[in-house]
Amino acid sequence: MTVPLSTWNAGAAKDAILDFVQRTCTEGSADAVPGAERVAVFDNDGTLWCEKPMPSQLDFILRRLAKMVEADSSLKDRQPWKAARERDYAWLSRVVAEHYAGDDTNVKTLAAGVVAAFANISVDDFEAASDEFLRTTSHPTLDRTYLECAYAPMVELLAYLRANGFANYIVSGGGRDFMRPISQEVYGIPREGVIGSAVALAYTPDENGGVITRQMAADYLDDGPEKPVRIWTRTGRRPVLAAGNSNGDIDMLHFTQHHDKPSLRLLLLHDDAEREFDYASGAELAVDHAATSGWTLVSMKTDWDRVF
Amino acid sequence: MTVPLSTWNAGAAKDAILDFVQRTCTEGSADAVPGAERVAVFDNDGTLWCEKPMPSQLDFILRRLAKMVEADSSLKDRQPWKAARERDYAWLSRVVAEHYAGDDTNVKTLAAGVVAAFANISVDDFEAASDEFLRTTSHPTLDRTYLECAYAPMVELLAYLRANGFANYIVSGGGRDFMRPISQEVYGIPREGVIGSAVALAYTPDENGGVITRQMAADYLDDGPEKPVRIWTRTGRRPVLAAGNSNGDIDMLHFTQHHDKPSLRLLLLHDDAEREFDYASGAELAVDHAATSGWTLVSMKTDWDRVF
Repeated sequence: MTVPLSTWNAGAAKDAILDFVQRTCTEGSADAVPGAERVAVFDNDGTLWCEKPMPSQLDFILRRLAKMVEADSSLKDRQPWKAARERDYAWLSRVVAEHYAGDDTNVKTLAAGVVAAFANISVDDFEAASDEFLRTTSHPTLDRTYLECAYAPMVELLAYLRANGFANYIVSGGGRDFMRPISQEVYGIPREGVIGSAVALAYTPDENGGVITRQMAADYLDDGPEKPVRIWTRTGRRPVLAAGNSNGDIDMLHFTQHHDKPSLRLLLLHDDAEREFDYASGAELAVDHAATSGWTLVSMKTDWDRVF
Repeated sequence: MTVPLSTWNAGAAKDAILDFVQRTCTEGSADAVPGAERVAVFDNDGTLWCEKPMPSQLDFILRRLAKMVEADSSLKDRQPWKAARERDYAWLSRVVAEHYAGDDTNVKTLAAGVVAAFANISVDDFEAASDEFLRTTSHPTLDRTYLECAYAPMVELLAYLRANGFANYIVSGGGRDFMRPISQEVYGIPREGVIGSAVALAYTPDENGGVITRQMAADYLDDGPEKPVRIWTRTGRRPVLAAGNSNGDIDMLHFTQHHDKPSLRLLLLHDDAEREFDYASGAELAVDHAATSGWTLVSMKTDWDRVF
């Protein structure tokens, strides 16, 4: 018999998970949740896989932007192409920091580049590029490919929940179509379980069934208050379990509560400089909310037996 | 042992369905389709349930608009409130006919009213209203509630596909959140399997997990070329089976084809004045496409043993 959560160390976080699953999945329990309502939602970057020194999708985009400069040198002094070509992480970090602090001026500049980077290509070609990138590109410091940067304890948690009748969804600020080609293999989450940010798409008919093409415009950024909206849009349900790690997950975690059934909200702390990274930037507000909202803190350092 | 499709009469349509399921679901068959790729998409109004003399959701909206006039008499001479209050079906039919002919001038007037009708209410309240309406309101001529207007042969087809490992999705021009409360009960399709038109939504946090509220703006109309886009958005897949009945389904039916696996496209003909309705308006182009694209025609009159 398999012991559940073998990659988790004994402690409050592991106990909270085991207790929640026990209560919600035991027929006849006062807290039992019907199978169809066992919806669990997970942020991706920093929750299911590593997001430092930068999210893998940002690396993917920077490489593409740098290639665009090779083809069109007039882009070389314009942001974000300039930063991409010069690998100017300081500029990029500042943009992300500004975003979490509520200033999206440079985010818009970056977003325009992101949207331009893969405009007018088919969703199939985009996925093939993403799939190849994630399989073949090494993480800058961790000595493994990006595909291997998923956290083993979270992958085990997903499997444990699935075995107990939960439907797991990825609810990421990252791109939906970036993650879909690898979600089943890495997380056991099928393509239809991936919720994420999206660009506008358009369908063009042809003799062979037509093509769906990425347009030069964002559709929505799946972050902050947009996360509950996109969860509802996709699932038609309010989750009973949510896991996140940053301020962008606060609304999703709050949304995961019911007056008539239990819920479990997990906030992952990056406090393990040795095995992963140690940072709290972008999560300060979330940690404050956790203290007053009954969320369960998960320390990578103490709660996880191994990280990868 | 249950005989599949007992509500279908012997004939080309029934044979095509049985043959398709046999080929795609028999392991080792040259045409076998892996379980995860067995995605089937169904238009709703006029394909899974009755859409005449008007789609049930239009009746739902008209009753709401008429109530708005009771509360605010300044609306009574404005469209679409005027038509709603006077039950001016001629105006409404003209709007729908204009839409299918490519003129959306009055559709915009109607859409503005539709969006206003349920603006600023929570998605939960909207669903409760839809649920009650569908259960308690009688169809104008068929002597049954709207909920009982689903076609028995299509419900049986959905169950047959599900038993063979297909994931069924509703891909309707009607409202996603209008259909969700009844989709499991009527069609065996869970809430996350309902794709349809949507208004913009917004999340407002509060002490109890926050509320998602319908906004005074459409998000998208899930019709024509938007159907393939929304299928991709939700499922991340190109379907292998599609069923529709009108010009708005043409793109979805074309999208349902592959160079490396079989597909089945069904176009339902409303040719049964005695048991349902006899009309071809709004489907003329679709019928033309069927003839040249290898789609399978389904005649309500000859292919169905019973309708309800």
